[in-house]
Amino acid sequence: MTLFVVGLGLADERDITVKGLDAVKSCERIYLEAYTSILMVPKERLEAFYGKPVIVADREMVESEADVILHNADKVNVAFLVVGDPFGATTHTDLVVRAKENSIPVVSIHNASIMNAIGCCGLQLYNYGQTISIVFFTENWRPDSFYDKIKQNRDLGLHTLCLLDIKVKEQSLENMARGRKIYEPPRYMTVNQAVEQLLEIEEKRQQNGKWLRGGMESVRSIYSPNTIAVGLARVGAEDQTIIAGTMQELLTADFGGPLHSFVIPGNMHFLEADILRTYAVNRETFNANAVVLEH
Amino acid sequence: MTLFVVGLGLADERDITVKGLDAVKSCERIYLEAYTSILMVPKERLEAFYGKPVIVADREMVESEADVILHNADKVNVAFLVVGDPFGATTHTDLVVRAKENSIPVVSIHNASIMNAIGCCGLQLYNYGQTISIVFFTENWRPDSFYDKIKQNRDLGLHTLCLLDIKVKEQSLENMARGRKIYEPPRYMTVNQAVEQLLEIEEKRQQNGKWLRGGMESVRSIYSPNTIAVGLARVGAEDQTIIAGTMQELLTADFGGPLHSFVIPGNMHFLEADILRTYAVNRETFNANAVVLEH
Repeated sequence: MTLFVVGLGLADERDITVKGLDAVKSCERIYLEAYTSILMVPKERLEAFYGKPVIVADREMVESEADVILHNADKVNVAFLVVGDPFGATTHTDLVVRAKENSIPVVSIHNASIMNAIGCCGLQLYNYGQTISIVFFTENWRPDSFYDKIKQNRDLGLHTLCLLDIKVKEQSLENMARGRKIYEPPRYMTVNQAVEQLLEIEEKRQQNGKWLRGGMESVRSIYSPNTIAVGLARVGAEDQTIIAGTMQELLTADFGGPLHSFVIPGNMHFLEADILRTYAVNRETFNANAVVLEH
Repeated sequence: MTLFVVGLGLADERDITVKGLDAVKSCERIYLEAYTSILMVPKERLEAFYGKPVIVADREMVESEADVILHNADKVNVAFLVVGDPFGATTHTDLVVRAKENSIPVVSIHNASIMNAIGCCGLQLYNYGQTISIVFFTENWRPDSFYDKIKQNRDLGLHTLCLLDIKVKEQSLENMARGRKIYEPPRYMTVNQAVEQLLEIEEKRQQNGKWLRGGMESVRSIYSPNTIAVGLARVGAEDQTIIAGTMQELLTADFGGPLHSFVIPGNMHFLEADILRTYAVNRETFNANAVVLEH
């Protein structure tokens, strides 16, 4: 029969499309990919809505047990549910390739994802440059390759969408080393944490720049505590929160529960600024720091 | 009550979300924005599905008759349907602003749009730079500002999504001048037309470059008839078509009816190339011309 890869959208069980729901209801087994993103409702809400059990598929299962997921999918329909759009994450590409190798037809059903829903803050989608990911820093691992991409976007006057890290079903190094399948509680990066990491990297890059240039020149910063940015939480949900402000202001703004996203605007068209200003913590600091193109 | 701005997704009446459908069914009046994009089914299919009449709102109505659309929306629910996601187009921002000025609550319901569904061709969304629009050339108006944006994206190794022009309910210059409300048949730019215009602009830019430099130097092209690109038609529909090939090959490939989209890949990760290759007109020309990063 068919492997349906169904996008669930962003917030709750009713964000699935009618086409997607019909497909799910036709399936004998339903898997939920639950490690690259999450809905804001528990899987029991999905099960009640579909009238069927839902199997949570963790990374291990998707990456190493594709055959289990695809078992007898040549005879019955199987659904693989993905938060957002099916093509938002790469991790299940293998599953689709494996299905095709086994002559199992694959049908993907699109839905909203943060990549297009981010338009809700008022910054136009066609004014965004490349999207970046910000991962949790650890004591010894503080990767900052995103910095150069933000620089490229800002040099072109473009906005940058920052996807914030989520850690679901991760093992501690100790448990991993000892082969103990004990998992840490899930962690979702907040806007506050993202801003903190971004400002740390900016400071480090400037220090490196000064050092490279013998400490004599001033180094141009890409952003600063005064740069206007936008934090978003639970996009698409009833309690969606959008706050615009300086990075300093966003360091302590309260966004509530996950998931959070972050945008660093480039040069704003005045219509973009007009909408974004309605979400400002403080209109005075917004007007003083926003880079708005002339009418 | 509420103004619901509801994304319809990409293809047919069943691409609406369950949340969106419930909202539409609660509405006393339903408007369909039908000039920045189109579904692949006529409005009668929507009406049958909703069990309610649908009013087609053209640009004139949305831009100058917002009060008609919002009439008594403080007492009843009104739906404004948008193909794709509500935040894909800017043209109805005014409507939302007007609603808020009149203290009418606005609820937006997200859906897939070409901006995220384009992931279906295998090129990862986070490797795209800014999106461009290609408009129909006329005899005297051949705007090419998109060229510099493609250049910026390609210089960074990024993919470029090209949105192709649609002309719905346009008047000829003569009819406009005479104030006759006679409209031309709708036109939707094909991948073939887009490639033709792109190649024309590249040739013109190179000639200008040679002229500026006294005809002595060779001018670096941004793309050429041998550049690998991707044409897509009716994304999300059952007869969705994806064809990858050189721009020369795509000049004559048959994509069928609207809507069409176009992507110029930057540097491809080998996994991206593996997927895109499955859509190639000709694997030999694909392999000879695709720019694929080393493993």
